[in-house]
Amino acid sequence: MDTPKRTEIGAIGEFGLIDKINRGVVLQHASTLKGIGDDAAVIDVGADHKKLICTDMLLEGVHFDLSYMPLAHLGYKAVTVNVSDIAAMNGIPKQMTISLGLSNRMSVEAVEALYEGIHAAAKDYQIDIVGGDTTSSRSGLVISITLIGESAPDNIVYRNGAKEGDILCLSGDIGGAYMGLQILEREKEVFKVDPNMQPQLDKYSYIVGRQLRPKARMDVIHELRDLGILPTSMIDISDGLASEIFHLCKQSQKGVCIYEDKLPIEKQTFETAAEFSMDPNTAALNGGEDYELLFTIDQKDFEKMKNHDDITTIGYIHAPDLGKVMVTNNKNTIELTAQGWIHF
Amino acid sequence: MDTPKRTEIGAIGEFGLIDKINRGVVLQHASTLKGIGDDAAVIDVGADHKKLICTDMLLEGVHFDLSYMPLAHLGYKAVTVNVSDIAAMNGIPKQMTISLGLSNRMSVEAVEALYEGIHAAAKDYQIDIVGGDTTSSRSGLVISITLIGESAPDNIVYRNGAKEGDILCLSGDIGGAYMGLQILEREKEVFKVDPNMQPQLDKYSYIVGRQLRPKARMDVIHELRDLGILPTSMIDISDGLASEIFHLCKQSQKGVCIYEDKLPIEKQTFETAAEFSMDPNTAALNGGEDYELLFTIDQKDFEKMKNHDDITTIGYIHAPDLGKVMVTNNKNTIELTAQGWIHF
Repeated sequence: MDTPKRTEIGAIGEFGLIDKINRGVVLQHASTLKGIGDDAAVIDVGADHKKLICTDMLLEGVHFDLSYMPLAHLGYKAVTVNVSDIAAMNGIPKQMTISLGLSNRMSVEAVEALYEGIHAAAKDYQIDIVGGDTTSSRSGLVISITLIGESAPDNIVYRNGAKEGDILCLSGDIGGAYMGLQILEREKEVFKVDPNMQPQLDKYSYIVGRQLRPKARMDVIHELRDLGILPTSMIDISDGLASEIFHLCKQSQKGVCIYEDKLPIEKQTFETAAEFSMDPNTAALNGGEDYELLFTIDQKDFEKMKNHDDITTIGYIHAPDLGKVMVTNNKNTIELTAQGWIHF
Repeated sequence: MDTPKRTEIGAIGEFGLIDKINRGVVLQHASTLKGIGDDAAVIDVGADHKKLICTDMLLEGVHFDLSYMPLAHLGYKAVTVNVSDIAAMNGIPKQMTISLGLSNRMSVEAVEALYEGIHAAAKDYQIDIVGGDTTSSRSGLVISITLIGESAPDNIVYRNGAKEGDILCLSGDIGGAYMGLQILEREKEVFKVDPNMQPQLDKYSYIVGRQLRPKARMDVIHELRDLGILPTSMIDISDGLASEIFHLCKQSQKGVCIYEDKLPIEKQTFETAAEFSMDPNTAALNGGEDYELLFTIDQKDFEKMKNHDDITTIGYIHAPDLGKVMVTNNKNTIELTAQGWIHF
């Protein structure tokens, strides 16, 4: 008898596995306008708007550590990561389902704390909780959320619409969530050695907040609409700026040039990176979980937006054969590399 | 400092916990026609049909045991349990998202086997896979599926529509999936003692198939439509017949009378129950996972359906103060009790 072939997932990587899986997908319904491959799927419902669907699963020990993640924040964040996907399609969130796998280490009060955060997010983002599944888990806490949003047909923004000459824009600042995570991990180690130590987080409140309490940028979506700007392409920053730029370029079949000195990095992110002897630009380019919006706009829209104090233009789209490059602070042009998160 | 209060989930039970959680739910959108509380949520999309949404999460060690559940069957079943929920609303499945948490024990080939089953189900039930999330899991395999279906507005069947005098109907047969599970668990124990033993399953192929390869009864949905019958209420059998009858009665605010001798139990289910010294009616009433449809019809529709060879009339709906009763084989009338699954 032949031994069955065994290939480790690590050998082909997360994206390799996803590619392999998706090859088997066959779309049978004309109403499926966009399947796998963007921040959300798009469904034609035969009305004056289209429906958007996205889903995210968070697992204890992989996506969060309950030793420093308060449950209410976790509940809020689990909703936020989904809202951010709908925002990245230029959509408005409407309904969601919540599935939870609960370990028997969790008390009723702990579940209530988790739901306090979920309900707060539902209120802030104006989402109806319409269903779900609650079950026990033999291992850690599992949170799986599916969010339904909507958008007028002509307003949906995909990853593949960037054109040569378009300006690359970024909301907020980046790298903070990643540096916040480094602080939380460090304080956890200190606590392990001496459980009487209280974590010293005051000095790092901004970046720790970026990690524990991110907000989806629905405000930016509404502001762009008010300014009369429809981005040509958009994606949210979950895996890190460089990785997301690669997704936009790949799907739009374009190249990009960004400027290192334009990267929006907060002072606290910068200082904390220095404390860890890290290049803050590495945190900005490859740290994830900032949940900011990365998008391209046509040059004609630049005037409408240039005074917006929370959106930074960080580069521009050019021909694919010019590659994906970054002009460094000392005026060298280097090739951009993307790392993304390695879970496996 | 006060110690925070700690209530074990087991102290209030799964339904108690779900009630507690749902109390915080506030619906903000007029388009949310039905939120939590039925087999699926109903959303008004402003078109000639309504959208249905349901979700189910399966966790290794709680819902399945990979030592006897082939991965392809598991993938198929994970889709089936969701299709069964859409069927129970009298809907047609259309699109789904698949989220997977994969432990590093799983090889690429194992994930492909799982997807083979998912793709086969997508083809059989005509569902487009439109998105998902694939991540690593520190513990076991996690499968979370959200399914979108649709139904013409006047065709949606809720749990709360049963009227006095309606006839209670059940598709297929019940108790088989539960007895199949007993066989698989027994063979697993035998295998633990002597790994050279091959499982003896031939004799039990029907009930083992009921456990490993259940099918959602979309055929019944189409047949009822062809017969011109719109059930007055409906639910699918996931937790066990008695428990589902209780849900229908509670939401319809009615009582019920069923007949023990009408319960559709296959010969193999009956014989296997005898082998385990179990009452086969207990397996039928409290065993779960049959994924048959339990529904009520108006008496005027009885003529249209009475010759259907895969639908059994097992009782009728009566006034709530007459209670939920079963007429036993020896003509005693006893109170019906529901157990459901206790995961916690």
